[in-house]
Amino acid sequence: MGQLFEAHHDGSSLYAPGAAAGVNLGDRVSVFVRVPAGARPVDNLWVRSTADGEPRFSEAVVDRQDPNGDVWWRGEVQARNPVTPYRFLLAGGDGAAGPAGSAAAGGSADGGGFAGGGGGRRWLTGVGEVDHDVPDATDFRLVTHDAPPAWAADAVIYQIFPDRFARSGAADGRELPEWAIRCDWDTPVVGRGPETPYQFYGGDLDGIRERLDHLERLGVNTVYLTPIFPARSNHRYDAAAFDHVDPLLGGDEALARLSAAVHARGWRLLGDITSNHTGDAHPWFSAAVSDVSSPERELYYFGDDGDYESWLGVKSLPKLNWGSAELRRRFVDGPSSVARRWLLPPYGLDGWRIDVANMTGRRGADALTLEVAALLRRAVAETRSDGLIVAEHGHDFTRDLDADGWHGTMNYAGFTRPVWSWLRSSSLGLPDFLGVPGGVPARSGSAALATMRAFGALVSWRSLVHSWQLLGSHDSARIRTVVGDAGRQEVAAGLQLTLPGTPMVFAGDELGLRGENGEGSRTPMPWDRPESWDDATFGVYRALVALRREVPELRHGGLRWVYADDDALVYLRESPSGSVLALARRASGAPVRLTGLVAPPDAAAPALVNLYGGAPPLRPAADGTLTLPADGPTFQLWRLP
Amino acid sequence: MGQLFEAHHDGSSLYAPGAAAGVNLGDRVSVFVRVPAGARPVDNLWVRSTADGEPRFSEAVVDRQDPNGDVWWRGEVQARNPVTPYRFLLAGGDGAAGPAGSAAAGGSADGGGFAGGGGGRRWLTGVGEVDHDVPDATDFRLVTHDAPPAWAADAVIYQIFPDRFARSGAADGRELPEWAIRCDWDTPVVGRGPETPYQFYGGDLDGIRERLDHLERLGVNTVYLTPIFPARSNHRYDAAAFDHVDPLLGGDEALARLSAAVHARGWRLLGDITSNHTGDAHPWFSAAVSDVSSPERELYYFGDDGDYESWLGVKSLPKLNWGSAELRRRFVDGPSSVARRWLLPPYGLDGWRIDVANMTGRRGADALTLEVAALLRRAVAETRSDGLIVAEHGHDFTRDLDADGWHGTMNYAGFTRPVWSWLRSSSLGLPDFLGVPGGVPARSGSAALATMRAFGALVSWRSLVHSWQLLGSHDSARIRTVVGDAGRQEVAAGLQLTLPGTPMVFAGDELGLRGENGEGSRTPMPWDRPESWDDATFGVYRALVALRREVPELRHGGLRWVYADDDALVYLRESPSGSVLALARRASGAPVRLTGLVAPPDAAAPALVNLYGGAPPLRPAADGTLTLPADGPTFQLWRLP
Repeated sequence: MGQLFEAHHDGSSLYAPGAAAGVNLGDRVSVFVRVPAGARPVDNLWVRSTADGEPRFSEAVVDRQDPNGDVWWRGEVQARNPVTPYRFLLAGGDGAAGPAGSAAAGGSADGGGFAGGGGGRRWLTGVGEVDHDVPDATDFRLVTHDAPPAWAADAVIYQIFPDRFARSGAADGRELPEWAIRCDWDTPVVGRGPETPYQFYGGDLDGIRERLDHLERLGVNTVYLTPIFPARSNHRYDAAAFDHVDPLLGGDEALARLSAAVHARGWRLLGDITSNHTGDAHPWFSAAVSDVSSPERELYYFGDDGDYESWLGVKSLPKLNWGSAELRRRFVDGPSSVARRWLLPPYGLDGWRIDVANMTGRRGADALTLEVAALLRRAVAETRSDGLIVAEHGHDFTRDLDADGWHGTMNYAGFTRPVWSWLRSSSLGLPDFLGVPGGVPARSGSAALATMRAFGALVSWRSLVHSWQLLGSHDSARIRTVVGDAGRQEVAAGLQLTLPGTPMVFAGDELGLRGENGEGSRTPMPWDRPESWDDATFGVYRALVALRREVPELRHGGLRWVYADDDALVYLRESPSGSVLALARRASGAPVRLTGLVAPPDAAAPALVNLYGGAPPLRPAADGTLTLPADGPTFQLWRLP
Repeated sequence: MGQLFEAHHDGSSLYAPGAAAGVNLGDRVSVFVRVPAGARPVDNLWVRSTADGEPRFSEAVVDRQDPNGDVWWRGEVQARNPVTPYRFLLAGGDGAAGPAGSAAAGGSADGGGFAGGGGGRRWLTGVGEVDHDVPDATDFRLVTHDAPPAWAADAVIYQIFPDRFARSGAADGRELPEWAIRCDWDTPVVGRGPETPYQFYGGDLDGIRERLDHLERLGVNTVYLTPIFPARSNHRYDAAAFDHVDPLLGGDEALARLSAAVHARGWRLLGDITSNHTGDAHPWFSAAVSDVSSPERELYYFGDDGDYESWLGVKSLPKLNWGSAELRRRFVDGPSSVARRWLLPPYGLDGWRIDVANMTGRRGADALTLEVAALLRRAVAETRSDGLIVAEHGHDFTRDLDADGWHGTMNYAGFTRPVWSWLRSSSLGLPDFLGVPGGVPARSGSAALATMRAFGALVSWRSLVHSWQLLGSHDSARIRTVVGDAGRQEVAAGLQLTLPGTPMVFAGDELGLRGENGEGSRTPMPWDRPESWDDATFGVYRALVALRREVPELRHGGLRWVYADDDALVYLRESPSGSVLALARRASGAPVRLTGLVAPPDAAAPALVNLYGGAPPLRPAADGTLTLPADGPTFQLWRLP
């Protein structure tokens, strides 16, 4: 694909300055399009926004030309609906595209699109410039729903699976339930087997509290705990209660202690709740089963034959029926409801990750998902205005966002998968690909980019930014296993911590731990075996997390892709305060040469200072060309002058 | 782009035989994928269907290999939800693609997608084979909503704008209202000016009835009338009543007479109703304005200042508020409601085209469009089970279909625009493009195909088939003006009458009439000037309509694209009964050569018989290659042996 010479817009403050602060119905917001010096020229530019279902056009004007020769156009969009789609129509440049050709990832590969005149008409949407008519799905979006809490955009999340993180001294004395298979901390985890859900290592909340210094060294600022309610498994997604913390984790008081300790460091603490189902040991379900006339019966989907709907047919996980008013009452109404009580003192969770959000409220003809998402968001917001709510979603999440519900999602589809496909080890033998059969496909950087753009274009900028950017979780293989070595893991972590989206690091990834599937990745943290730690990888994560904290463009900047080929991806994060340039290489190869990013220098032209990766400063050639390092794997970041 | 060597599936009876007859929740349907002999090989094929929001995979098996060497895979999809999305995962063929390369219109242009192994994994969705991960929007769809009436798939629609079609003898005696500017039948139409909505030619319903022989000669079987209710304009979209037919058109009795005459020929008759607004002369609006406490007040959007919402700010078209229960009562409840009464004897309309459906129910935070569509569809279906309801939509209609509402839409976005862009005259000077500024862009056949596939992929097969395939209407320039000459109009009409979708011919197009915009295209039919008719064009339409009637594949077959370049498009319409091959060329050029469509012949191999266009039979070369005619513009159709 090579260098991309494209006009650019995104929803960040450089390109939509009025949208960042929040938008109300009726507001008019200025939107900017940058036409880089090397891109196909633009003679006319219109904004198309779709209001009340009908597209309208207004002409944009040239706002300025910057010292680099890039032309900035300014137009206006009015927020006529809660979500107002907009895109740009560009005309001009009948001839060939930019210096090195320009084929948008999502565009047509058809160079004949402008044969015979027609004014070089093309659209600019969330997938870039497209030279044929396309549906509205990739339009940019102006959103008037209440904004996510401000802290979330600065968060770096650390995911903890409580049974496997750390044991406090109190753990030894606890009596285990019958289902639990007691394991020493060094017992190998069985990733696939009858004992998998029952291996019990005894990590607890006080154990986490005692290890917060590790998180401090890493630099994260938000702790996300997978479920902490009683259950009959080590993962606790089969909740047996929502009204008290599992005594095996230390109970309610331990949560209060952990919350106090996390907040004392100025951090945030997130919980994990399943809105799709409970465990079959939950008293709601017991009551529903034992008495068909109980008020709990309607909380589930029972058929006339007494059978009931369950998660993917697993009968220990009966599915909740959100058509039930009683379920809504218990889950979201009032301060003692499931969604609310744990956000209040002394527990003070800062929000929820919603398990199986993608299936919640969906069953046969029931399509209540967006309604439930909105109910839960309101419950969170009414309890604490700075509460966050993020949806689990393993595949295409895009239709479930921007609906005044989930603030974001777990971005497996638009981040994890393309990164895995691009960086996977050539000797990787995993049988599936996050639930897709056939193993992890090997794909080029261009293909990874096409997927990232395809998903990113279907949601608002702010939903993208508030979605979790993860390289793995308790539900997947570990990134180290996927990519094979520390060098490629650094590239993966570089992408994770410098692209838009909220980085979520699964505990142990920073030590180079391995795991071949979700269950097998739930490895106890090797506190007692420091010699097993990959200190270099810890250093990489620590430096990248610090970089994200120190470089505001990485948290708040826009995203402009400038180059892709098989082995390299290059992008800019841009904000009114400045711009940084990122290079991700999976292997050595011909050096990437970029033109048009900086003006041709005079003798005193400043170099691009390296911020990460250790490459020398980048010095533009006499014609302004930048030549990036050819060695790989590597991840590098520079600041543009 | 050249020849497409792609695996193929669509929702037609050849590829989804169980879906054609209608599907109920819970049904399991066999789905087939054809892997043409020349396509990238497939070693494994999985069906992915998304049920209750979660994707599941099942393995498909090889069902058969046909004599041509194409491999047919068979899988299964269960209709777990009213709309169940599905797609296919293909593995195999790590090496290069088919004989001439294969880049899907919607796919990545990235040939490196399979470098380094990974098993040649790619998806097959509604846009073809895609070699990177993409969102679900282009998945195929299994739909359980009630099917459209059976007659609709066989319909060829003729659109009549009543004031301009034909005058009966009774027209002379009618007194005109004050707003009307009386025009002789030969008065030039003013397309843009103060008199535009008021030029009154006096066409009426008895005039239409007297001219039905013209439609019979043309071969159409469905008459669609733009509005017939009283108004204060010649177009009557500003309805002043819904409870009686405009006396200027002959009143209720004339409609009954026309309906009887149309049905006596075995045809269907469709009306046109505006659900988005009324005219300001409507008694509902008069009552609402004159009395703030009237029951009619809530039918509209009045602000506290007494101002009201109107269509695009045109105050004579006050917008209806579908949040009002009273509006719903009047519009859809009971046999005398707006939606129902005209479907009953003696009027017996066979359904409605819904004007401004795209804006209906949308205003600010109100998003009632799908709900209104479902209400109206139910009202129609309850009144007559064979009723049809089709939405006007000028841009992206895809999110408004498959929601148990509109059976189809006016497919400007996915048909009219790409055809115009491909076939436009090089000297065309129209200032806009169906509402898009900058005129009609000139685009290649590949670009046209990319747009057709992009829109077609976002709706179910049946919604595509029941959408109206039009080259223009009372709201657009005429196709003859856009393409410039009879030769290219034949190509356009060839596409219109042989692609999936319900052809809708705007009265006069078959005579080669011209018009530069919607209003200017509302030309009186030149009954009195037969010398002005383009008899050759009439012959083309007549032959193509007959072809559609005689070749069942054109009405019920699937659609497989096999070739696209700047100047040519080639596709197959396939059904269990056989297949036909269509060539559309806008200009002469190098002959298109197709390989792999027919098996290499023995001496007695049959040729492909020409069904339309006059080209000779196609005789495969010794290696099976077919060489299509190089002259253009032309439209040709052959039957595969």
